[in-house]
Amino acid sequence: MIGAGMMGKAHSIGFRAMPMCFWPAPAIPRLVAISDATEKLAQEACERLGFESWVFPWRKLVKMKDVEIVDVVTPNDTHKDMCIEAAEAEKHIYCEKPLAMNGKDAREMFEAAEKAGVKHCVDFNYRMTPAVMLAKRLIQEGRVGKVYHFRAKYLQDFAVDASFPLVWRFRRAISGSGALGDIGSHIIDLARFLVGEFEKVAVMTETFIEERPLPESSGSTPAKGLVDVDDAVCILARLEGGTLGVLEASRFAYGRKNFQMFEINGSKGSIYFNYERMNELKFYSAEDPEHVQGYKTILTGPPHPYGKAWWPIPGLNVGFDATVTNMIYEIANGIVNNKQIIPNFYDGWKCCQIMDAILKSAEEGAWITLRTR
Amino acid sequence: MIGAGMMGKAHSIGFRAMPMCFWPAPAIPRLVAISDATEKLAQEACERLGFESWVFPWRKLVKMKDVEIVDVVTPNDTHKDMCIEAAEAEKHIYCEKPLAMNGKDAREMFEAAEKAGVKHCVDFNYRMTPAVMLAKRLIQEGRVGKVYHFRAKYLQDFAVDASFPLVWRFRRAISGSGALGDIGSHIIDLARFLVGEFEKVAVMTETFIEERPLPESSGSTPAKGLVDVDDAVCILARLEGGTLGVLEASRFAYGRKNFQMFEINGSKGSIYFNYERMNELKFYSAEDPEHVQGYKTILTGPPHPYGKAWWPIPGLNVGFDATVTNMIYEIANGIVNNKQIIPNFYDGWKCCQIMDAILKSAEEGAWITLRTR
Amino acid sequence: MIGAGMMGKAHSIGFRAMPMCFWPAPAIPRLVAISDATEKLAQEACERLGFESWVFPWRKLVKMKDVEIVDVVTPNDTHKDMCIEAAEAEKHIYCEKPLAMNGKDAREMFEAAEKAGVKHCVDFNYRMTPAVMLAKRLIQEGRVGKVYHFRAKYLQDFAVDASFPLVWRFRRAISGSGALGDIGSHIIDLARFLVGEFEKVAVMTETFIEERPLPESSGSTPAKGLVDVDDAVCILARLEGGTLGVLEASRFAYGRKNFQMFEINGSKGSIYFNYERMNELKFYSAEDPEHVQGYKTILTGPPHPYGKAWWPIPGLNVGFDATVTNMIYEIANGIVNNKQIIPNFYDGWKCCQIMDAILKSAEEGAWITLRTR
Amino acid sequence: MIGAGMMGKAHSIGFRAMPMCFWPAPAIPRLVAISDATEKLAQEACERLGFESWVFPWRKLVKMKDVEIVDVVTPNDTHKDMCIEAAEAEKHIYCEKPLAMNGKDAREMFEAAEKAGVKHCVDFNYRMTPAVMLAKRLIQEGRVGKVYHFRAKYLQDFAVDASFPLVWRFRRAISGSGALGDIGSHIIDLARFLVGEFEKVAVMTETFIEERPLPESSGSTPAKGLVDVDDAVCILARLEGGTLGVLEASRFAYGRKNFQMFEINGSKGSIYFNYERMNELKFYSAEDPEHVQGYKTILTGPPHPYGKAWWPIPGLNVGFDATVTNMIYEIANGIVNNKQIIPNFYDGWKCCQIMDAILKSAEEGAWITLRTR
Repeated sequence: MIGAGMMGKAHSIGFRAMPMCFWPAPAIPRLVAISDATEKLAQEACERLGFESWVFPWRKLVKMKDVEIVDVVTPNDTHKDMCIEAAEAEKHIYCEKPLAMNGKDAREMFEAAEKAGVKHCVDFNYRMTPAVMLAKRLIQEGRVGKVYHFRAKYLQDFAVDASFPLVWRFRRAISGSGALGDIGSHIIDLARFLVGEFEKVAVMTETFIEERPLPESSGSTPAKGLVDVDDAVCILARLEGGTLGVLEASRFAYGRKNFQMFEINGSKGSIYFNYERMNELKFYSAEDPEHVQGYKTILTGPPHPYGKAWWPIPGLNVGFDATVTNMIYEIANGIVNNKQIIPNFYDGWKCCQIMDAILKSAEEGAWITLRTR
Repeated sequence: MIGAGMMGKAHSIGFRAMPMCFWPAPAIPRLVAISDATEKLAQEACERLGFESWVFPWRKLVKMKDVEIVDVVTPNDTHKDMCIEAAEAEKHIYCEKPLAMNGKDAREMFEAAEKAGVKHCVDFNYRMTPAVMLAKRLIQEGRVGKVYHFRAKYLQDFAVDASFPLVWRFRRAISGSGALGDIGSHIIDLARFLVGEFEKVAVMTETFIEERPLPESSGSTPAKGLVDVDDAVCILARLEGGTLGVLEASRFAYGRKNFQMFEINGSKGSIYFNYERMNELKFYSAEDPEHVQGYKTILTGPPHPYGKAWWPIPGLNVGFDATVTNMIYEIANGIVNNKQIIPNFYDGWKCCQIMDAILKSAEEGAWITLRTR
Repeated sequence: MIGAGMMGKAHSIGFRAMPMCFWPAPAIPRLVAISDATEKLAQEACERLGFESWVFPWRKLVKMKDVEIVDVVTPNDTHKDMCIEAAEAEKHIYCEKPLAMNGKDAREMFEAAEKAGVKHCVDFNYRMTPAVMLAKRLIQEGRVGKVYHFRAKYLQDFAVDASFPLVWRFRRAISGSGALGDIGSHIIDLARFLVGEFEKVAVMTETFIEERPLPESSGSTPAKGLVDVDDAVCILARLEGGTLGVLEASRFAYGRKNFQMFEINGSKGSIYFNYERMNELKFYSAEDPEHVQGYKTILTGPPHPYGKAWWPIPGLNVGFDATVTNMIYEIANGIVNNKQIIPNFYDGWKCCQIMDAILKSAEEGAWITLRTR
Repeated sequence: MIGAGMMGKAHSIGFRAMPMCFWPAPAIPRLVAISDATEKLAQEACERLGFESWVFPWRKLVKMKDVEIVDVVTPNDTHKDMCIEAAEAEKHIYCEKPLAMNGKDAREMFEAAEKAGVKHCVDFNYRMTPAVMLAKRLIQEGRVGKVYHFRAKYLQDFAVDASFPLVWRFRRAISGSGALGDIGSHIIDLARFLVGEFEKVAVMTETFIEERPLPESSGSTPAKGLVDVDDAVCILARLEGGTLGVLEASRFAYGRKNFQMFEINGSKGSIYFNYERMNELKFYSAEDPEHVQGYKTILTGPPHPYGKAWWPIPGLNVGFDATVTNMIYEIANGIVNNKQIIPNFYDGWKCCQIMDAILKSAEEGAWITLRTR
């Protein structure tokens, strides 16, 4: 593992929990080594997260013999080098999203991994929410029909506070974009996963607060730096098959903490999901008798995807870490049984390509057509 | 009253209920005369809705001496003539939305009413929902702060069924537009009412089902006619003051029956409203102590706008007709006390103007800037 | 009509709205005369509610030739005399709940009305909520199966404020009981309507605030009087057919405004209703495929009881007055077509009988078995 | 650890996750040894849950030198012997609820642990839900005031299916009681935790399905055995301080999966919690300005109890395992810093004592007064 922040913690819990939940497990992970931005951070992370060893710098880790899979949980600007070197060292790769700073880099990473013949996974972990997978299943079962509308929002509120510091997520050189890449990428991925490819987009973005205190700065008049990414992005999209897509990502929506939602309206029914209630899926079927039609609130559990791995009845709830645990199961399964992992670097690349078009549309004030592969 | 459909019924209940609720009432309405599309319909409506007399055609009604106010509840293409003749006859006017087929006609109507010196009201009745008025009050009290986001949807599902007939709402010559004018106009009005004017728009529209059975037709292979209006419209808007607006209206959202919602995110708080739960307003205040911040569900009642007119505690609920009853109170008040009624034909005109820009943006595939007055 | 308070207003709106909604109507009501506690009140009510005349005292009204039905909307202690005199004058009767101060009086009223051969209705108006009638329909269709649990609550919060005055609802001599008769009677009635008769009860009651300011009193140290009724009542009940009933009524539940809820769990499904969202019914069917089982939120409208009388799609909402309008339709229908009205004085009597047993159980601290008829 | 079922899994995840979340951790757990009902089960559990070794029978484990704490996650009838032997071997103890088969046994366990001077914890893990701890905090801050009402339900639906087998939870000899001990014990504990001790109870219980297929049996006419415990229990309770308590536990409530809810109404506000939405707490404050009073939905996260240990913003959600992880933190903290753990065997004993009174009340059909200690 390279990186030991919030996602490093989630992944570490996931590596431990996976065999306890998915038994018999395809493999029992060993936490061989961890690296981080400094020696000291790597050492502390090793103890805290229960790894066998720490190394510094990360390039050493990528080459370690006992390491079979490299888990990249670092800021966006570092993914490319790490993944390409890991691929060259013939390690399987599990990389955080967004895969890269732009579509061109992402494509290189995809091609490097493919060329090396390693398994690769991009951490669009929200796909692994049981309720999201249930949505996919209901669509595949034909319960939604032809999709007329896809609307998704990913809203947070941590950035409304003007004193929130200029962390890397607000700096284009490290993050590539703002709300778009950080959270918007997840709903772009869900649109692709649940509905289909993007054909064209019209976009507006805004940076509501243009300067923020530097993280290292303090006192009553802290030094400030420029926010050069989007605080919010609003997207109209034509998706393949004629679906109208409306997507929105913002860090400026008070009261919305991790409000990642989507709604799909089709010719036979509708689906609604809000991650803040991640153990629920809402489903409306126009095939029910007319007088008992209504949005159902389905509590996910054993009858649903990944449900048997967890608790014996619905309503006991899984948390954020479960999305990662489920992904690690898919990765282990892919490696052990030599199957393609989904989502993989192709998905990571396509998402970056769409984000390039989104930024271009915002800049040019015009509809942008996506190039097909 | 001209017209006796669903809105005629709602208005008739409202005329009767107004003084019972708002007492002492500015005036006690007399239901002097009603007209409709045929003599027979007018006669039946007179008995059903409890009017004193019926007349045919509507031109007679506009000139009746005892009539002080003409209530126009007919399809969109008839509003212009009726309103202009009513104004010329020096009657006050209460007209259904959208005010006209386009901005140009709406402006003529506004100017005719102003010239005649009569009071005029356009029936954006949803403003009169107590929860919507409470939203307005919270904004005016500064509880939301600077508005970053306005998002609104008005979703229905009656048109998903391909056998639903080609009623006038699907025919441009009568309705002017589809989901846009029928339901989208309400959320455009709410954006103006709660946030501010539109500066520019980017739009996509779609007609999902292009042919429908003619209403007069029947049997297993009914004759069909062309749907030449939008089934759905998705709008990006820049609103004055820097607010990002995202609006969507559709008749193709299964499970959404009369889902007129808006959410406003500002620098101090957020507001959420869904008309399907019209007796509730959700409000989030970032000024609450951090550990008790959360979206509140406020049940409207006596402490809220129009609340004292209705029931003695919240939770007893008002229905759709109450939005009209409250509007009729405003109209009576405006006439008796010689005050401008809000919303009036100016609001009706501005809404039509914005809709013209929306249709143009959809046609041209480009951002359209709104002309200021 | 005798009485002109909140329920008088609701009934007056209902009499006007009924034919507009239910067309062709069984009858078009005339509001012949109204009486109230004083001449002045009666006169003001006549103008406000749109009656043809006022009379005083009420005994005159009961004997008026043009009056066909007497609507009793007065405090509880007056119902008995008014109803019995109305029956003796051969008027049909529509009486507020609870029907009487106790089971014995209620029985006399029932027997007087039956003897006179008039139609009689007790205003358990919440039965007429479309969602409640839909619950009844779902049970009758067998969608719930054998009923294991019935739980109901009716919670309000207006009495938590210790300065709320000692109005008649807090005085046993006028009201008979406190939360029990005022609001508990409605959920007792719903238990009987939806499940079946009561077999035995165990109860606890409490009066949280024992003295309140007299209504006529004022100033910083107002004169106080004794609250001699229950502020809250909690009931365990064995219902016929083996259902476990748990009921609770309280005026001391902050945040619950008119929270009249019930939940029914049966061998095939469950139903949940909360009047604060009176246009919704929740329904769970164990007969759905396992992976799409969940509580549905059904928005009531045209496909549901009374739905066609109101608005053309669900989600437009009816309010409190609609429960009365629907009841008035049932009354008109019963009278014109000579059919028994439901609920009638028999239901009023049974409810009073059960309340007698509840008060006895609270007093004796023991289970009380209900006498069968 | 003794036992390796669902709770064994949850505890194992918790032991691993605790230091990753709570850093610097009071201790880093070693999973020294596990035992289970057979050698084979113990061996499999060792591998699955990542323990260092397995032993059989459990008595060996209790005496192992490296074992500092014994985690008892076995059926109810085994707790007493295991805990007393563990105490005698001077091991700290973490025991599943209900602590024992009755109050007498529970008291012996409490006294044995106290005598041995070991730390002891009873696994009322739901207290450790961040939202529940937040409820406790709000009460302690005085935001609820004097408590008028406590109502709690714990509803599940797995037993409605008559073919569900006669597992140990349906057999009194192993479980002591049915829904009461299995799930009711949790809400009894929450009443004690959040409000106060029980003073007296009136109860009804029911066994809806009296025979079930034996687990080992199969085929179309499986052998059946008798259910000799309660399927459902309904409780009226007088709690100290004058609070009215209404509690209900049932396995026969279709649609309710793990519906553990409570609502507290006080003189200043109200609190509502439903475990199916475990990451939310609802709170109503009568101290807010009147026109913005409403139930808030608070999403738990960093500003709330245990929040900083988990994810950086609310809305990312914790799952069932987090309740255990948090408890393990409390245990480690209690042991390392020599502080009493809460909840402990005293709480386990009091709960069993109340359950004895509940069963007695159901049997005798009378109010039962709780003996004070």
